[in-house]
Amino acid sequence: MARWQPDAPGRLAAAALDLFEEHGYENTTVIEIAERAGLTKSTFFRYFPDKREVLFGAGTITDLLIEGVASAPPTAGPLDALAHALDALGRTFFTADRREFSRRRQAVLNANTELREREALKRIDLTAAMVKALNRRGVPILTARVTAQLGALVWEIAYDQWIDTTGEDFGPLARRALADLRATGALC
Amino acid sequence: MARWQPDAPGRLAAAALDLFEEHGYENTTVIEIAERAGLTKSTFFRYFPDKREVLFGAGTITDLLIEGVASAPPTAGPLDALAHALDALGRTFFTADRREFSRRRQAVLNANTELREREALKRIDLTAAMVKALNRRGVPILTARVTAQLGALVWEIAYDQWIDTTGEDFGPLARRALADLRATGALC
Repeated sequence: MARWQPDAPGRLAAAALDLFEEHGYENTTVIEIAERAGLTKSTFFRYFPDKREVLFGAGTITDLLIEGVASAPPTAGPLDALAHALDALGRTFFTADRREFSRRRQAVLNANTELREREALKRIDLTAAMVKALNRRGVPILTARVTAQLGALVWEIAYDQWIDTTGEDFGPLARRALADLRATGALC
Repeated sequence: MARWQPDAPGRLAAAALDLFEEHGYENTTVIEIAERAGLTKSTFFRYFPDKREVLFGAGTITDLLIEGVASAPPTAGPLDALAHALDALGRTFFTADRREFSRRRQAVLNANTELREREALKRIDLTAAMVKALNRRGVPILTARVTAQLGALVWEIAYDQWIDTTGEDFGPLARRALADLRATGALC
């Protein structure tokens, strides 16, 4: 067994982002990413099944989201339970020190179809996780599916604003996006 | 130039589906698909940029969807304009003779991550097309985004029911799914 490496996935992601920006995603190999991070190829594959996965973390966000929905006040309706989870995500994950990395990462994703595909599937998996978490709170399945779709849109709007602006926190942006969605009255 | 081939994309898709079912997606080559369809590799690449694309048609659905939204009665609200488009899609594309192919196709997609990723990105592109088509009818952009998200869910629910049942048409299934979504009152 190799020695334990402090934050190996984070170092690999940072190295990958640098290299993707410098040479393009297509022209970067897993070996180059590992070398840049001062790690080995086998360490890379201990954390990520393939090159595409390196910018997608290790399921952390899904876990935080599920926890956030579960820990919302029992009186919160489905959409408010989601807002509570997005707020929590803003405090623990989409923090100010991650903003610049997230902005650069998104630019790399947007420029590459393979990465956009992986991102699209991750979003579907995240939405499915929201549905399950809401259903576990007693929200009927169809309401949970509608709420999760709307939550995915709230997330997208808030995230795009969060990476493009300098000051505002993710949680308040998500709350405002949700209020704007409600104001459309689109489902009434 | 090769001779014109009647419905070459359809023959290639049918051949690909057969082969993916028989040997798996991973174990099938573009050459084998072309041969099975009685066509050449270069004909394949005239219609599809890669092997993944062969089960995703050539943008037909997007065009039909945009047309369907545009041709909805001027008095129709955003969600009803989408329902009108899904109805049209049921009459022109998701027809009874396509049901069995669609069911088999979906089973192959569900079994392969690469194909699920391509499908996930196609869904995002379709949702973006819905947003544009609604916006062109004068629907404000945020309302259009909410409506398109809900439309994507209506589509998914109706499609899953359509391929799994034997009798009901896609259009009525979509109408019913939309009514059920409205009844959740999730955004009110």
